Amino acid sequence: MERITAAAESELWFTERMAGTGFQYSLQVAEVLHAEVTPFQRLEVFRTTGFGTAMVLDGFVNVSDKDEFFYHEVMAHPALFIHARPRRVLIIGGGDCGVLREVLRHGDIDHVDMVEIDERVVRVAERFFPALTASNGDPRAAIRFEDGVAWVRDAADASYDVIIVDSTDPVGPAEGLFGATFYADCHRILTDGGLVVVQSESPLFHQGRLAEIHRCLRGAGFADSHPMTYPTVIYGGGTWSSSIARKGRRLGDGVRWDDIDNRPFTTRYYDRGIHTGLMSLPGYLAPVLSGL
Amino acid sequence: MERITAAAESELWFTERMAGTGFQYSLQVAEVLHAEVTPFQRLEVFRTTGFGTAMVLDGFVNVSDKDEFFYHEVMAHPALFIHARPRRVLIIGGGDCGVLREVLRHGDIDHVDMVEIDERVVRVAERFFPALTASNGDPRAAIRFEDGVAWVRDAADASYDVIIVDSTDPVGPAEGLFGATFYADCHRILTDGGLVVVQSESPLFHQGRLAEIHRCLRGAGFADSHPMTYPTVIYGGGTWSSSIARKGRRLGDGVRWDDIDNRPFTTRYYDRGIHTGLMSLPGYLAPVLSGL
Repeated sequence: MERITAAAESELWFTERMAGTGFQYSLQVAEVLHAEVTPFQRLEVFRTTGFGTAMVLDGFVNVSDKDEFFYHEVMAHPALFIHARPRRVLIIGGGDCGVLREVLRHGDIDHVDMVEIDERVVRVAERFFPALTASNGDPRAAIRFEDGVAWVRDAADASYDVIIVDSTDPVGPAEGLFGATFYADCHRILTDGGLVVVQSESPLFHQGRLAEIHRCLRGAGFADSHPMTYPTVIYGGGTWSSSIARKGRRLGDGVRWDDIDNRPFTTRYYDRGIHTGLMSLPGYLAPVLSGL
Repeated sequence: MERITAAAESELWFTERMAGTGFQYSLQVAEVLHAEVTPFQRLEVFRTTGFGTAMVLDGFVNVSDKDEFFYHEVMAHPALFIHARPRRVLIIGGGDCGVLREVLRHGDIDHVDMVEIDERVVRVAERFFPALTASNGDPRAAIRFEDGVAWVRDAADASYDVIIVDSTDPVGPAEGLFGATFYADCHRILTDGGLVVVQSESPLFHQGRLAEIHRCLRGAGFADSHPMTYPTVIYGGGTWSSSIARKGRRLGDGVRWDDIDNRPFTTRYYDRGIHTGLMSLPGYLAPVLSGL
């Protein structure tokens, strides 16, 4: 008879399955740091063995220490370096505060409204993600716990230079952030030459949804729009997209290339070459913009 | 008592774990199409539900229909458009034949030697991956089933313009393809201005290994080298790298931008903007080239 000579160490893995893709991925969890049900969603925080701390919303990983910089830099910097002089920025969602941190690196910014529906996401991020939330006390930032759809509906015409929609996927609390009415309001409250950036799902698995986002953006009056793709681990499928659109001008007009090269802050992903790549449309994404 | 009213459909998932990363991913398998043990490795072919046909070598996914184009295009086109007039190309490994297909799209190419150690990989690819192996009958291509390390050691000085090392990871049959001696031979058998491209692992998880590859490349005499990162699903971790190095010239010298724009074949990923992005060094990769 065999004797068990040492207790096997148990392994805990969190698995995220992307519906309809035949793909799932797992992160090894060292410790469950936090779990609660907020008024809006289930919120968990894990200490993982390979990705640092990770936040999970309704079963989908929202952010991890390891790869957050790809997403947050792409959501913030291309738009802010295309705009001639961005002063006022609106962030919808963005509860982990990583986009807010990147936006505030730009010295020209006078004011940022961040409108997150779920205060608990911000409070939990402040506790477990100090690097992401380091700028939350910046006097230029106003963090408001309100409905982003209503905020945009009620905002004055031409009141923002850049809008960043850092939302979860278009099911659950973020559903209203993917519609034509919302984009039309974004267009209305932007100044001329202003830009909107939206999280727009997987370019490999959700091309139909991505195409629909661009149809809606152009339908809402935006003069130009483009999908930007970048690496992600935690959003599944290896590559993810954000889409950028501009009011009244082309995305390539007046890009501040010298300011990109001479930016007075450090980036881990974004630079001139990456900007160029982000604004390129690879052949496999051509259907997304065809017929617009 | 409950009655079972329908048989639950069983689900088959193939899981690949990246050692030491706390990350694993899974593809849903609809059918095992083929399985054998070759003289060199275990070889399986799956029909997956989300990625088409996938080939697995020693438990690691080597290629899938869904995302093969990212890898194969990056392995072939940047080097072939940097070189002023590439005539003779050597592919080491490359058994799925996708790199060969991309190389042969270039009309200037006179001759390609593809040296794959495991004939079974090519034969199985010819059976299950018709799109990848469509160019195998091209009269410019010589497919040889030999040891790539010996081939490079025995090749004449200055006998190739471009060498592409499309290998598996540096364990098992490909181990000899990641060393200083091999790179020195590559340098010797390249013409002046010639380029080598090597599969160089994950930029997020294997940065030490990637840095070592660049130390070896520069140590072997290459005048310039650069890591190129691109999306992958099946290589795990969302982003992967290939590294490119050049004999006697900088990688940016004489890039044939007009030929990139006017290429007489279709690409799904590579173009001018992607080339620019691939040749950019994001901040998080700076340690890979520091001190070289």
